Amino acid sequence: MTKRSPLAPERAPELPAIAGVRLAAVEAGIRYKGRSDVMLAVLDPGTTVAGVLTRSVTCGAPVEWCRNNLSGGRARALVVNSGNSNTFTGRAGQAVVEETAAAAAKLIGCEVGEVFISSTGVIGEPPPAGKIVAMLPEAMKRLSASAWNDAASAIMTTDTFPKLATRRTEIDGVPVTINGFVKGSGMIAPDMATMLGYVFTDATLPAPVLQTLLSAGTEISFNSITVDGDTSTSDTVLLCATGKAGHASISAADDKRLTGFRAALDAVLIELAQLIIRDGEGAEKFVTLNVTGAASDKSARRIGLAIGNSPLVKTAIAASDANWGRIVAAIGKAGERADRDKLVIAIGGVKICDNGGPVPGYDEAPVARHMKGREIRIDIDVGVGNGRATVWTCDLTHGYIDINGSYRS
Amino acid sequence: MTKRSPLAPERAPELPAIAGVRLAAVEAGIRYKGRSDVMLAVLDPGTTVAGVLTRSVTCGAPVEWCRNNLSGGRARALVVNSGNSNTFTGRAGQAVVEETAAAAAKLIGCEVGEVFISSTGVIGEPPPAGKIVAMLPEAMKRLSASAWNDAASAIMTTDTFPKLATRRTEIDGVPVTINGFVKGSGMIAPDMATMLGYVFTDATLPAPVLQTLLSAGTEISFNSITVDGDTSTSDTVLLCATGKAGHASISAADDKRLTGFRAALDAVLIELAQLIIRDGEGAEKFVTLNVTGAASDKSARRIGLAIGNSPLVKTAIAASDANWGRIVAAIGKAGERADRDKLVIAIGGVKICDNGGPVPGYDEAPVARHMKGREIRIDIDVGVGNGRATVWTCDLTHGYIDINGSYRS
Repeated sequence: MTKRSPLAPERAPELPAIAGVRLAAVEAGIRYKGRSDVMLAVLDPGTTVAGVLTRSVTCGAPVEWCRNNLSGGRARALVVNSGNSNTFTGRAGQAVVEETAAAAAKLIGCEVGEVFISSTGVIGEPPPAGKIVAMLPEAMKRLSASAWNDAASAIMTTDTFPKLATRRTEIDGVPVTINGFVKGSGMIAPDMATMLGYVFTDATLPAPVLQTLLSAGTEISFNSITVDGDTSTSDTVLLCATGKAGHASISAADDKRLTGFRAALDAVLIELAQLIIRDGEGAEKFVTLNVTGAASDKSARRIGLAIGNSPLVKTAIAASDANWGRIVAAIGKAGERADRDKLVIAIGGVKICDNGGPVPGYDEAPVARHMKGREIRIDIDVGVGNGRATVWTCDLTHGYIDINGSYRS
Repeated sequence: MTKRSPLAPERAPELPAIAGVRLAAVEAGIRYKGRSDVMLAVLDPGTTVAGVLTRSVTCGAPVEWCRNNLSGGRARALVVNSGNSNTFTGRAGQAVVEETAAAAAKLIGCEVGEVFISSTGVIGEPPPAGKIVAMLPEAMKRLSASAWNDAASAIMTTDTFPKLATRRTEIDGVPVTINGFVKGSGMIAPDMATMLGYVFTDATLPAPVLQTLLSAGTEISFNSITVDGDTSTSDTVLLCATGKAGHASISAADDKRLTGFRAALDAVLIELAQLIIRDGEGAEKFVTLNVTGAASDKSARRIGLAIGNSPLVKTAIAASDANWGRIVAAIGKAGERADRDKLVIAIGGVKICDNGGPVPGYDEAPVARHMKGREIRIDIDVGVGNGRATVWTCDLTHGYIDINGSYRS
């Protein structure tokens, strides 16, 4: 077990119960010893679901299964294992997914199309067919409304801490809760990691509304972070709504009664996304990149990701070096509009570049102090429009090489 | 000075004289002590020129100058300095380029539009206006037909060895020579490095023909390598033809008489491109990625670059780990067509994946031996078409972090 990330929050939040959601974690011995590796969530009848899945063309069998089931819009169970990603496992991989879903559906008394499966861990190894199924009855017995931390821990791979977030809000005056947990410490590390996220609420929202809210929220959260610029073969985010809160169902995502809910959901998604960066492989610094003045929000996000993915920017940050030249170069290669001669760059709130060049005689001391800290903030204005985005990333350190450049055994 | 790359060739080739090309290297003291940092090449009247320049929107003033002059198609001088890239230097940077070109044009007796300028080194520092100009008369005195190694050395930044290549061929039965040299040890390291390349021939070819040949050759050479996936603000490749060989001018790039010349030019460009990888920052292994079965050659190159840019693939190679799972994931994220269930991956000639999964019981011993060597070969067939490309890259090591994650001072 790697030591806890220096960027980890002091403690995980306590998540309240959500009516209609019960969770359990069990030890199936898939790959790890002495820890749980299968998470089961059972959802009451009537739960709606939306999802965002990896666009990788080499995605795993569980992703294909989820994509297919999402069209039904209903969820009764999530079964997630760590240790084996069931990716690049051909027909055997599909069979394991089908077998697991069938077993869970039978235990719960639902359709197989209401069972969602995720797997994370080693790629290309035959999945442990029987091990997950064998532990499902035990997991059923242990179901609890409070096992959030156990569930978040069971799905960890190279993660050094469980990642959870919660918010309370209201819909139409009725209190509503949103809980979520994720795993992931690289955008991808197909050996042992990927990004999985599960969010639950007691709101009453049809699947298409959930999907609109989740897709929009994912753009500004999970699609706005990068550790190493890769897209995983297993990335999955599911949002489940049990409908137990008691408000009337709302049929349009842009209904004004959802303003507070949307903000709370976005806050949960962003907090979870930031936790992934705070556990970035080898990360020593948490970096916030605010891009403004772009041709569009999308363009701003692409510029932010180009900066956040640049190994040269990330190694400079690791060295506490306010190397704005590398930021300029990363903007240049983003493939997006930017006015070189209007670029503004500020680090830790101190403007160091302006009008196509360094600010003459800027005070380097506060910038150097800021760069030595754990939390780095870089503001960039590219001078062509009103598009803006915030992207979060981490530095690239020897720790990353240590974690990823060692034998699998 | 960093120690010579372990992947460097034992010695640089001896380049023959090319009629109409004279070179000199001088010490202008721009940044380095005790080494030359300005290269002057003087070309006889009638020399044609073509070029390929960075597409970065934050390119430097010298790149803009070259782009403008290339439309004239004629070159009489190249002035290249190392130590300062004259990028993000605003109006002052433009003034330095104009001043340098004017001084060189006056000394040589040519138009300023026939003088090409490149600069490589630190970004955003005021360029050393007078230093280059002051040394031009001395450089004129030292011009020599044999100073290839001196010229290649003067333009180095983080490079650990000078990079030169040469080929002899024939056009229409007349012997023709092609010489070239480059610098670069990251695709970009805007602090102290970028990719510059200069190729010379005594062939008689109009500028549009040169341009067609150079653009095509660049695709399969400099655009098929990656160290860290970045595009520099200064990347420049120029091809100059003095017309002294004595054959009749050839007016079409697809003229059959150019078959041998095209092959020789491609060979020079590819050899130079490979030398950049062999000097990749921190590189310990030289990696050849052959991609076949893609939708098109372009698609194959993109897949190859996605693999070659993946930090996870590169750290695995650094660890001599035949981690094909990471290769599968990189293919998946390339944004190109690939058939997951037909993927074939061979390492060192041994097929380890086939038909959507690992080859059962393949012999791991020769693969492990191959991965421990300096020269790694990976063949990938993505199973959808006839497109093919070869991409060269290096591993990602602690050395890369050491080189790029240290203070500039």
